[in-house]
Amino acid sequence: MTSLSTDPVATCLRDLTPPVTSFASDNHSGAHPSVMAAVAAANVGPAAAYGGDAWTARCEAAFAELFDRPVAVALTFGGTGANVVALHTLCGRDSSIICTTDAHIALDEAGAPEHITGAQLLGYQWDGHGKLTPEHVHDAAARFDRVHIQDVVDIRNVVSVTQATEVGTVYSPDELAAVCEAAHRYQMAVHVDGARLANALVAWGYGAGQLGDACQRLAECGVDVIAFGGTKAGLLGAEAVVFPDPALAGPVAQRRKQATQTSSKMRFLAAQFLAALSAGAILDWSTNANRTAQSLASTVVATPGAALAYPTDANAVFATLPRAAISALEGWTPFHTWDPARDLVRFVTAWDTTDADIEALAAGIRIACAAALDEG
Amino acid sequence: MTSLSTDPVATCLRDLTPPVTSFASDNHSGAHPSVMAAVAAANVGPAAAYGGDAWTARCEAAFAELFDRPVAVALTFGGTGANVVALHTLCGRDSSIICTTDAHIALDEAGAPEHITGAQLLGYQWDGHGKLTPEHVHDAAARFDRVHIQDVVDIRNVVSVTQATEVGTVYSPDELAAVCEAAHRYQMAVHVDGARLANALVAWGYGAGQLGDACQRLAECGVDVIAFGGTKAGLLGAEAVVFPDPALAGPVAQRRKQATQTSSKMRFLAAQFLAALSAGAILDWSTNANRTAQSLASTVVATPGAALAYPTDANAVFATLPRAAISALEGWTPFHTWDPARDLVRFVTAWDTTDADIEALAAGIRIACAAALDEG
Amino acid sequence: MTSLSTDPVATCLRDLTPPVTSFASDNHSGAHPSVMAAVAAANVGPAAAYGGDAWTARCEAAFAELFDRPVAVALTFGGTGANVVALHTLCGRDSSIICTTDAHIALDEAGAPEHITGAQLLGYQWDGHGKLTPEHVHDAAARFDRVHIQDVVDIRNVVSVTQATEVGTVYSPDELAAVCEAAHRYQMAVHVDGARLANALVAWGYGAGQLGDACQRLAECGVDVIAFGGTKAGLLGAEAVVFPDPALAGPVAQRRKQATQTSSKMRFLAAQFLAALSAGAILDWSTNANRTAQSLASTVVATPGAALAYPTDANAVFATLPRAAISALEGWTPFHTWDPARDLVRFVTAWDTTDADIEALAAGIRIACAAALDEG
Amino acid sequence: MTSLSTDPVATCLRDLTPPVTSFASDNHSGAHPSVMAAVAAANVGPAAAYGGDAWTARCEAAFAELFDRPVAVALTFGGTGANVVALHTLCGRDSSIICTTDAHIALDEAGAPEHITGAQLLGYQWDGHGKLTPEHVHDAAARFDRVHIQDVVDIRNVVSVTQATEVGTVYSPDELAAVCEAAHRYQMAVHVDGARLANALVAWGYGAGQLGDACQRLAECGVDVIAFGGTKAGLLGAEAVVFPDPALAGPVAQRRKQATQTSSKMRFLAAQFLAALSAGAILDWSTNANRTAQSLASTVVATPGAALAYPTDANAVFATLPRAAISALEGWTPFHTWDPARDLVRFVTAWDTTDADIEALAAGIRIACAAALDEG
Repeated sequence: MTSLSTDPVATCLRDLTPPVTSFASDNHSGAHPSVMAAVAAANVGPAAAYGGDAWTARCEAAFAELFDRPVAVALTFGGTGANVVALHTLCGRDSSIICTTDAHIALDEAGAPEHITGAQLLGYQWDGHGKLTPEHVHDAAARFDRVHIQDVVDIRNVVSVTQATEVGTVYSPDELAAVCEAAHRYQMAVHVDGARLANALVAWGYGAGQLGDACQRLAECGVDVIAFGGTKAGLLGAEAVVFPDPALAGPVAQRRKQATQTSSKMRFLAAQFLAALSAGAILDWSTNANRTAQSLASTVVATPGAALAYPTDANAVFATLPRAAISALEGWTPFHTWDPARDLVRFVTAWDTTDADIEALAAGIRIACAAALDEG
Repeated sequence: MTSLSTDPVATCLRDLTPPVTSFASDNHSGAHPSVMAAVAAANVGPAAAYGGDAWTARCEAAFAELFDRPVAVALTFGGTGANVVALHTLCGRDSSIICTTDAHIALDEAGAPEHITGAQLLGYQWDGHGKLTPEHVHDAAARFDRVHIQDVVDIRNVVSVTQATEVGTVYSPDELAAVCEAAHRYQMAVHVDGARLANALVAWGYGAGQLGDACQRLAECGVDVIAFGGTKAGLLGAEAVVFPDPALAGPVAQRRKQATQTSSKMRFLAAQFLAALSAGAILDWSTNANRTAQSLASTVVATPGAALAYPTDANAVFATLPRAAISALEGWTPFHTWDPARDLVRFVTAWDTTDADIEALAAGIRIACAAALDEG
Repeated sequence: MTSLSTDPVATCLRDLTPPVTSFASDNHSGAHPSVMAAVAAANVGPAAAYGGDAWTARCEAAFAELFDRPVAVALTFGGTGANVVALHTLCGRDSSIICTTDAHIALDEAGAPEHITGAQLLGYQWDGHGKLTPEHVHDAAARFDRVHIQDVVDIRNVVSVTQATEVGTVYSPDELAAVCEAAHRYQMAVHVDGARLANALVAWGYGAGQLGDACQRLAECGVDVIAFGGTKAGLLGAEAVVFPDPALAGPVAQRRKQATQTSSKMRFLAAQFLAALSAGAILDWSTNANRTAQSLASTVVATPGAALAYPTDANAVFATLPRAAISALEGWTPFHTWDPARDLVRFVTAWDTTDADIEALAAGIRIACAAALDEG
Repeated sequence: MTSLSTDPVATCLRDLTPPVTSFASDNHSGAHPSVMAAVAAANVGPAAAYGGDAWTARCEAAFAELFDRPVAVALTFGGTGANVVALHTLCGRDSSIICTTDAHIALDEAGAPEHITGAQLLGYQWDGHGKLTPEHVHDAAARFDRVHIQDVVDIRNVVSVTQATEVGTVYSPDELAAVCEAAHRYQMAVHVDGARLANALVAWGYGAGQLGDACQRLAECGVDVIAFGGTKAGLLGAEAVVFPDPALAGPVAQRRKQATQTSSKMRFLAAQFLAALSAGAILDWSTNANRTAQSLASTVVATPGAALAYPTDANAVFATLPRAAISALEGWTPFHTWDPARDLVRFVTAWDTTDADIEALAAGIRIACAAALDEG
């Protein structure tokens, strides 16, 4: 009987020290120390429940200052909750929500967006690296017109874009503005699933000192509601639903409650965001994530047998590797095998990914690919 | 023109220092220091997401040890979420959920339990201090039998009890067991909305060293799922859905996701509960809450013009006061005017309520009632 | 062993000929011949689908003429569908629907009203012979105000009354107007579940020649939408959702489709109603039903051991009988044992109930009661 | 001012007599005389409600005889209702329903299938003339496996095929069996939206005397539930949900009620189907429809400027015509302009389409196309 250990690819990483961090997801990282400190500092004496506290008020004011306009803000516990609250505030039982077929709201939220809002998802298979285009919006509008999915006049349909996308790309401001422009032509609203929004804003070229500029640029694109991600960026766990135009936020308090996302001790969500927004810190954290992802992408490009599947715009590196190399790496360090049929894997970086982590992973990839090519 | 300040009742508390704490709700309190410390301690390095981490595993083991049997546990962000996840795991589109007409799930959760589970609520007006009785269960069963709300055989209906109740009373073990026995006779399951479960367990006579005994006593009553409250007891924000019989928990992971209650950084919810369960600490915290509530109740009983509306079994004091006294108190310190038409108010104590807080509130009540009686 | 046939009560009806008709429900009757003729007459050549045909247009015009105002009309297949379409046009996800605990929409529609509209039912136990009162409406409004089931401003709650009621009584015009007045004070709309509306209009004193007067009287009470029953009155199967104020009917076409109640060959529903409305024929049919019910009620009153449980206002006789008499009758002719625990039975008459049917049933009741009293 | 009448294309049909029938849809036709007679014959005396009558029992027996096995049958009012009842009996809140992006359940039922069942639709863009293929099923299965839309074990996903399809084509028995085989490999069930099933069975080569053979062939393909269309085939209005394996039909009675599709006077639905099934009459009616459609298709093929867009397998002819010809025809006789952007129109034939109707329409098409080509 042949022992497994004699397979040179499977054993090639046996003596290599794996990275300290996990590249499986940015939610494997903990919270930034300043977030923890802010939560501890908020734990003093009594405070009104359900958002009637001073921290929540300050958090809303901080968003208003960043967007340089009055905004409506609803903090939520998690990302699925933020998307559901955002969508259900804008649309409901009679609406369609246009998204990509691989959108997080379509595939990874157990049907909650459809069930809780009552709306129908209308998924489009993208061919532009994970992005919706104005053509998708035009097609949907023509379809509504033709087949009467809905036939009442005052309905609001929604276009949902993920920024950064599920495959690690980022809509440019022009791309995003074009989708918004198309959507608004048909009275559709635009929702941003921004679980990794900070990474996208960094990809747009903004640094910590420019968080206000970044938010304003986003609003100028014409988006109607933003699920502004906090958890993956470095919070303990909190997201913010932000409406650049408060007039659209009417029922948001009710919608949050209906989605089981209203925190009684809201101050602890607000304190987290206050830390993240203070001096634009969240963009600092995401700058580290994007920078280390870029560094990893360079390794992939330079490694024989490996290739990038999509541009590394933000903090996720999608790569194709030899199948045997994937197997070897799977036993060595955590990451996500995105599509086994295509030998496609994903590595995600975070606020706490170090250069040493990247070097360690890069070494593993190089060795595993080389071993696989030797055997192949 | 007469100035407002000349009204002797309205001004009677002008010179009295109000309590430091808020009696409006136990969720106005922050988190116990040991909880904060536990969360900070869990913030080290990477951890698997969505509950695949070591803290979550330890938390599940801690519950199993307390209940002295294998249990299924699903942590959630908040209390409405915990109720929805618990109910939707047991029942769904074809079910009825029997509860009191003033149950939190009926009145205070914006329809989320019905909408997300798809079940119908069947509310009974209680006449036993906030509690369901076996008679309610028999009546519901006869109704189902007669009018065929449902007519498929394998349906599971649920009886939902709140422990401690919405009016601050506590089902005795015998009362709870009787409801369970009636429910099981008709193949109904029993759900406990335990947002203030720890207060109820203290009311049953259990101290910190007896948390295991208390949990086992609860399970022996026959309850099928417990939304085990953490937030109001002293956590930052976390609840635990506990199934004493894991065989009933089948779809709970999916149900939690559908309810937008699956935390990606679950370790931070688990760490909170680990602190609360450690050495039965949560019962220590609730002992303080119940003890201070008892102290306040004694004041109410001894104050002319004031009376208890319901027994003070746990940490909520429901009192009727002269209307003018209520008005005076409302301008002085936060509490909840439960039913203005009945001059009924609620004071809630918490883990951090001090004797000085009670003394300050008691003084205010005495002065306001005396002033109101003088004027009346 | 004693044979069953020796029990004198059980065998007392052995030699008595049972009625030809069924008293179990008015939907056991077929369709009036004029309805069948109208459907056959409509079966000529092609006609536009989904209500774009001439019969539907004429039906809508007929309702407008009867109500003496422009009305909106949506025909549906069945009664549950009519209620759901009516309710969902007026309210939705954020609404509460106030009704009696034994309302058809609460007990007999398998949760469809709640599930399809998304609204919550709020049931009140009646103490006035099956009817809601203004006090119920005031109580609900106070509850909404106090506990914030909803907290958005533009919500529409609905009060749903069944006319004739589930226990065979009829709201007088004044009673109905009082409920409407109370509802409108709180911006609630009023829905009439009129599965037996024609029987109620006859009870108000209107004959076939006065159908227009009857409809106008109904509208003057202030009701906002009527599920105008046809099937139980004598149609093959059709109901009409009528909005006395078309401004409230905005999304009705979409709501009907969402409730699976939009008929493609709508002309055949419209033709049925045209026959029923023509010369007020439907009130003629219901006059027969009410008259025969009155006759049966007189028998009950005059029979020792039998008693009326509720006033016989329309076409349903609710009677309490000796238990043994009920058993004997159950084996002899169909009727509905409404509540076995209370020895309460229901006999329903219809457009085709004959005097001979009443005489036959009356004879059976007399004999069975006498035999039961003899034995008792 | 130039008069419209001087445009030679627009006016080319001015003097041509249009067809008597409507080609806009097969639901523009009335009911076959034998159906009307059967309904009239069923209108005799009382009958138990909700399907407890003799006609319904005979209808169920008729289906069982045709399928040559015990089957479960649930009659419904309409086609959307039949689809919803069929799907909701097989699947629910946790399921995905795989269909084409242009499926009737996705585009034309106002979201009812998703809302009432709670399941998510997963639409695939077809490239095989309106049909799903095993590859779609494999892709969906891989997706479920990868992204965990669902993660409970006992879930049932459904593949929904429309037979005949939305574009007038017909799955061959082999094509249908291949889809079923793929679906069953992943424990998915197969639903047939058979609004035009009789036309498909005729396309398979079966005549009136072979309805039993046709049904058995269908069952042998492996389908799990069939929404067996009646209305478009020639009924007044009725559909039958048929389960070849009654073991899968468990909750169908409850599902029908929840979908507002339970008829109280069910005998009148059953009588219609009894007429349609008797001696396989429904296949006779559909033979006429398919034959006249073939005849029309031949005209299209032979007309310069006109072309078939899809094969005419059943009773719908999809043709592309010169835009000006479409405009001229639109003013002359009813049909459906399916996609204006593609100059694509649909003509549907029915049980009552005559050769004279076809000749009249063919003449119109020839003249309009010729005029358009002359002008173009």
